[in-house]
Amino acid sequence: MAQFSKSMKKIAIFTSGGDAPGMNAAIRSAVRVGIHSQVEMVGVIGGYSGFLEQQCQTLTPRDMANIIQRGGTILKTGRCPEFLRPEYRKKAADFIHQQNFDGLICIGGDGSFTGAHLLWEEFKIPIVGVPGTIDNDIWGTEMTVGFDTAINTALEAIDKIRDTAASHDRLFIVEVMGRNSGFIAAHVGLAGGAEGIFVPENPISVEKIIEKIKNGLSRGKTSSILVTAEGQKPGRAYDLAEQIRKKSGFDAKVCILGHQQRGGSPSASDRILASRLGAAAVTSLIEQECDVMVGVMSSQIVRVPFADAVSKEKKLDKDHLNLAAILST
Amino acid sequence: MAQFSKSMKKIAIFTSGGDAPGMNAAIRSAVRVGIHSQVEMVGVIGGYSGFLEQQCQTLTPRDMANIIQRGGTILKTGRCPEFLRPEYRKKAADFIHQQNFDGLICIGGDGSFTGAHLLWEEFKIPIVGVPGTIDNDIWGTEMTVGFDTAINTALEAIDKIRDTAASHDRLFIVEVMGRNSGFIAAHVGLAGGAEGIFVPENPISVEKIIEKIKNGLSRGKTSSILVTAEGQKPGRAYDLAEQIRKKSGFDAKVCILGHQQRGGSPSASDRILASRLGAAAVTSLIEQECDVMVGVMSSQIVRVPFADAVSKEKKLDKDHLNLAAILST
Amino acid sequence: MAQFSKSMKKIAIFTSGGDAPGMNAAIRSAVRVGIHSQVEMVGVIGGYSGFLEQQCQTLTPRDMANIIQRGGTILKTGRCPEFLRPEYRKKAADFIHQQNFDGLICIGGDGSFTGAHLLWEEFKIPIVGVPGTIDNDIWGTEMTVGFDTAINTALEAIDKIRDTAASHDRLFIVEVMGRNSGFIAAHVGLAGGAEGIFVPENPISVEKIIEKIKNGLSRGKTSSILVTAEGQKPGRAYDLAEQIRKKSGFDAKVCILGHQQRGGSPSASDRILASRLGAAAVTSLIEQECDVMVGVMSSQIVRVPFADAVSKEKKLDKDHLNLAAILST
Amino acid sequence: MAQFSKSMKKIAIFTSGGDAPGMNAAIRSAVRVGIHSQVEMVGVIGGYSGFLEQQCQTLTPRDMANIIQRGGTILKTGRCPEFLRPEYRKKAADFIHQQNFDGLICIGGDGSFTGAHLLWEEFKIPIVGVPGTIDNDIWGTEMTVGFDTAINTALEAIDKIRDTAASHDRLFIVEVMGRNSGFIAAHVGLAGGAEGIFVPENPISVEKIIEKIKNGLSRGKTSSILVTAEGQKPGRAYDLAEQIRKKSGFDAKVCILGHQQRGGSPSASDRILASRLGAAAVTSLIEQECDVMVGVMSSQIVRVPFADAVSKEKKLDKDHLNLAAILST
Repeated sequence: MAQFSKSMKKIAIFTSGGDAPGMNAAIRSAVRVGIHSQVEMVGVIGGYSGFLEQQCQTLTPRDMANIIQRGGTILKTGRCPEFLRPEYRKKAADFIHQQNFDGLICIGGDGSFTGAHLLWEEFKIPIVGVPGTIDNDIWGTEMTVGFDTAINTALEAIDKIRDTAASHDRLFIVEVMGRNSGFIAAHVGLAGGAEGIFVPENPISVEKIIEKIKNGLSRGKTSSILVTAEGQKPGRAYDLAEQIRKKSGFDAKVCILGHQQRGGSPSASDRILASRLGAAAVTSLIEQECDVMVGVMSSQIVRVPFADAVSKEKKLDKDHLNLAAILST
Repeated sequence: MAQFSKSMKKIAIFTSGGDAPGMNAAIRSAVRVGIHSQVEMVGVIGGYSGFLEQQCQTLTPRDMANIIQRGGTILKTGRCPEFLRPEYRKKAADFIHQQNFDGLICIGGDGSFTGAHLLWEEFKIPIVGVPGTIDNDIWGTEMTVGFDTAINTALEAIDKIRDTAASHDRLFIVEVMGRNSGFIAAHVGLAGGAEGIFVPENPISVEKIIEKIKNGLSRGKTSSILVTAEGQKPGRAYDLAEQIRKKSGFDAKVCILGHQQRGGSPSASDRILASRLGAAAVTSLIEQECDVMVGVMSSQIVRVPFADAVSKEKKLDKDHLNLAAILST
Repeated sequence: MAQFSKSMKKIAIFTSGGDAPGMNAAIRSAVRVGIHSQVEMVGVIGGYSGFLEQQCQTLTPRDMANIIQRGGTILKTGRCPEFLRPEYRKKAADFIHQQNFDGLICIGGDGSFTGAHLLWEEFKIPIVGVPGTIDNDIWGTEMTVGFDTAINTALEAIDKIRDTAASHDRLFIVEVMGRNSGFIAAHVGLAGGAEGIFVPENPISVEKIIEKIKNGLSRGKTSSILVTAEGQKPGRAYDLAEQIRKKSGFDAKVCILGHQQRGGSPSASDRILASRLGAAAVTSLIEQECDVMVGVMSSQIVRVPFADAVSKEKKLDKDHLNLAAILST
Repeated sequence: MAQFSKSMKKIAIFTSGGDAPGMNAAIRSAVRVGIHSQVEMVGVIGGYSGFLEQQCQTLTPRDMANIIQRGGTILKTGRCPEFLRPEYRKKAADFIHQQNFDGLICIGGDGSFTGAHLLWEEFKIPIVGVPGTIDNDIWGTEMTVGFDTAINTALEAIDKIRDTAASHDRLFIVEVMGRNSGFIAAHVGLAGGAEGIFVPENPISVEKIIEKIKNGLSRGKTSSILVTAEGQKPGRAYDLAEQIRKKSGFDAKVCILGHQQRGGSPSASDRILASRLGAAAVTSLIEQECDVMVGVMSSQIVRVPFADAVSKEKKLDKDHLNLAAILST
C-alpha cells in the first residue's frame, strides 16, 4: 500500500488476463463514478498490450449504457508476456506519462496485479486493482468478480448432466476451470450434490472414490457425478476416468465445461460486487492511496497491498469439502 | 439463546411461511447430516399446521435425492394463524411430546421464528431456526436462503424489460417483492442499472424521479426503468405510474413480477448457504443450544437468539442506494 | 401480391409495432443478404415515424455484428397513429422517393402491414413484410418471429410459479399476452401443464373451471395453475380471480407476466426463422414481387399477399386445447 | 404400417437409446390419454432391458404429476445389445404375453425402432414409436422430441463462448453432438452466427475455412466461432484445431459441449411436440394401426412405417448451410 500526492484529472482503466463476467459492470461503475467526480476516464484496449500499442479512447457515460448485463469486456483483454521485460514496461510508462494519465485501474487477476505493482515500484505510477477472475483465487477478498456467475454456469451444466446420468444409471466426471485452485470445483460440487470433488488443495485417492461409488450402489444410488478442477492442463478428467476404469471397471463419461464458464450475463451478485469495486478503485485513487487491490471482506470494502494479494495464498475452506462429502451420501 | 440438556435421537424439521428457493437444499442437508450423526429425522408437513394436523413422516437419505436443485419445499409450507393462540400451541406441544421429537428445526422467516421462540419459552421444546425467505429482512444473518435466487430471477425479468424499453423509448416501473423491506428492490435496482429505486427505508419524492428522467432525456437517454418494492400491498407501481403521469405527462408502463420471484431452481450461492445452515441447525441441537437462528456473518456460521432475530431491524445499506443513484446517470 | 419492374440498388428496412425477440436477427439477415447482392441497405429508425421524421442511416455488415442474440430492435420501433391519415403517408412517400429507396422491408404485425399495403396501393412503393410479433396471430405463416421466445419466457415463469403453488397448495391465475388471440395462452398452457386455459377463441365458463378444480382436489391434486390471455386490456386475471372467489370461495393468486414476454435473447428457433425470413424478404424484392409478407408454411418459405395476411383470421387449433384439457387431469 | 385386430386394455410404454428432453412429457401424455381412454398404462424400466429383466410398474395419472418439465426420463433408458439376438427378443415377447400387454409404445431413435419393428414382424406384438432423440435424424418427421431443447442448450453455450472469444480476439471451435448427422451443428451454427459449420453431409475443406477467417480479419472481424458435429467419435474438434494450426498458424481453442446437450428442462416446443406425439401413439394403437412411428409433418400428425423411418435418410437442408455462410460475413 502506498500514499502518493497527485490529484486525479485523468484515469486510465483496462482489463487484463482472462475475461470474467462482471468486468463490464466494473468498468461502467468506475467510469461513471470517475466522471461524477470530474475525472476524465480513458479506456485502454486489450490489457497491457494496449499501453504498448497505444490503443486508448476517452469514455463517456453514454458509452457505458447497456453494458452492465454483458459478459466479456468491451475493453478487450489478453495476456501480455512482453510486460515481464523491463524495456516494455518502460515503454508503457512513457505512454502513460505522455497521455497524462494520473492514475490507472487494472481489472484482472494476480498475474495482472504483478505487472501493476511493478508500474508503481519502478515508475511511481499510481495504480489500483479490481479482482476480476472466475477462479476466486486472490488473497484479500472473499469474492472476485466473475466467480459467482461462473459457478452458476457450471452448476446449470451439472444439473443438465444429472438428468442424463440418472436416466442412464451412469457415472460422470465433470471438469470445471481452476488451474491451481479448487474454488470453482468445491463450490460447484457442493451446490451440485456431487458424489466426489477433486481439487488440488485436497488430493483424494481414486480408490476412495471408487469405494464411495460402490457404497452408493449398495444403497441403491445408481448414478454419480464427480467434479474435478482442471489441474495443470485441461483434460485431467480423462485421466481420472481411465484410472477409475482400470481399478474398478466402472465406465465414466467425461464432460469438460471449458470456456463457456467465462462468458454469459453476470449474476446479480457479480454485478453488485463489480459496481462496488469499480467505484472503490476510483475512490482509492482520489484518496491518493495506491499499489492496492480493492476487495470485499465481511461485506466491507477493503484495500489490500498488491504485494499481499499476489503472494499470499487464499485457502479453500476444508469444512466446505467435508460438508459436501457428508451430503453426497 | 438457551442451553438445554437432552441428547438428540429424533429431530423434526419443517418449513413455514412463504416458500423460498433453497429450502429443499436446507432440508436435504439437515436430514443427511442428522442421519450421519445417528439421529432419526422426521419431516412435518405444511408448516405449523402439520403439528396440529399431525402430518409427519420419517425421512431417509434416499428421500433427499435429487431435491437440491428444486424450488419450493417438499415439506410444503403455509402460514398458520391458529398458532398465535396458546391452546393451539399446547396442542402442537402435545404432539411433539407424543412423537418423542427431541428437537425441532424450523426453516422460515421472522413470523415463523416468533412461533418457534414461544415453543421454547412455553414448553421448553428445543428448536433452532434456519432463515429461509426471499426478502433477506432478518437481523443477524447477512443473507437468507432464497434471496440470491430471487434477485437473479427479478434481474432476468428486468434485463428482458430493458430490451423492450430501449426499443420503444419507454419508461417502465417494475415492482418487486418486499413488503416492509427494500432489500430485493435495492439489490435488483443496482444490478439492473435502474434509473430510480423506491424502497420503504428511503422514501424519495416522485418529483425528484421526474427531474432525473428529464435530465436523462436531455442527455440523450430515451428509456428508463424504475424499480419499486411492493409496499403494503402489491400494486404500488400503479400508484407511482399515475402520480408520474399526472405530474409530468410521462406515460409509464407497469410490470409486477409477483410470485415467480419465489420459485425456480436455487442459485449456487443459495444452495451452498442452505446446505451450510441446514447442517449448522443440526449441530446446534446436538450441541444442546437452542432458541436460536443459525445465520452467516462474515462468511462464518453464527447463532443468533430468536429474540434478537425477530425484534431487531436489519438496515438496508444506504451506500448501496447512493451508488445506484450515481451509476444510473 | 404484385409484380413491379425496378432493380434494387437501395433498400430501406424498419421495425414497426410492438417489438419481438428475433427482430434483430431478421435485420441482420436482410442487411447481410442485401449487401451480398450488391444492394445498399438503409435502416429507418423508430418504425413509420422514422419516415416522417426522416431518421435513417446506411447499415454495414459490421453494424450487424453481435446483434443476432439481442432482444428488442436496434432500429427501434413504435406505433405511428399519424400513418392512418393520407397526408402523412404522402409525406413518407416523398421521403422515400427523395432517398431513392427502391424497396422497403417492414418487420412487424398486421397493423404495420396495413400501412405497408397502402404504401404500395397509393404510391407503388415496392414493400415486403416480415411477420414479427410475439402473438403469432398472422394468417399465412405458421410462425411469427418472436412467438417461440415469448412462450418459452412465459413457460419459465410458470414453472417457477408451480414451485410456489405446489408448496402452498394454491390456485394461481397467470395472465399472458395476446389481446385478441390465444396462441400464447394455448401453447404455454399446454406446455406448462395448466389446469385451465382461457382464450378469446374458446370461451369456457368459470363454473366449468371450478368443477375441474374440485375434481382435481377430490383426486388429491392440491394446487392448480390457470392460464389466461390478457383480453381487451391487461388485468383480466383479476376479474377471473374475483369470479372464482365469489362462486367457489377458492382464493386465487394472480400473476400478470407483462412486458418481460417481449424481451430476452431470441430462441434458436426464432433466430433461424428470422434469418430465413429476413433473407426471403430481400429475395422477394430482388425478384420484383411485392405487396406480400414472407412467411413459412410446412417448413417452406411462402409469399402471402398483404391483403390476405391482414384480413384473414388464423385459427387456433382446437385439438390443442382439447389435448391440454385431457392432460391436466 | 400394419393393421391388427385387438382392443387395447393394457399398454406398456418405455424409453430407449439416448435420453432426450421431452421424453417425460411424452410419457405423461401417453399415460394420461391412455387412462382417459380406459386403458391401463404400464411403464417398463430401462429400455428393452426392462423386458428382459422383467421390470415394470403400473402408472397412474398422479405418477405423471410434475414431470412435464423434467429432463431425462423417469422410466430410465439405455441401449440393449442383447436385443439384436433372436433368443432375447423371444424372451421379451414371452414377458409381454405373460403380462397381457396389448400394445407397446417405444420412445427412442432409429436403433430403438429397429427393435420395435422386429417385435411386430416376429411376434405380431402391436407397437408404435415416438421419435425421441436430440439428433433429429429420423426420416418421416420434421422434428424429433428433444432437438429443440438441445439446440437451445448448445446455443446458450455458444453465446457465452462468444463473449470470451470477442474479448480475447480468439478463434473457437465448438463441438456439438450429432454422430452421423449435422442437424444440431447446422441449426446451432446458423442461430449462433458461426463463421463456419462442419457437418458430415457437406464436407468443407480446412483451407476454405482458413481463407474465410483471413477475409474476416481483413474486414476487421477479430474473433470467430466454428461449429462442428462430433463425427464418428467425440473429439473431432481437436483434429480440426490441429489442422488449422498447422496450415495457418491460427491458434484455435476447443470446446466440446458434450452430454449437457441431452439434459435440461424441455423447451415449450419440445413439450408440445412430445405431448402431441405421446397422445398420437396411444390413438394409433387404439385405432389398431401399428408398426409405425408417429411424427409431425407440416404441423400435422403422421404415421410413418418403421421400415421407412429406419431406412430412409433425412436430408439436411443445404439452403440452411448456404444462408449461414452468407450471414457470417
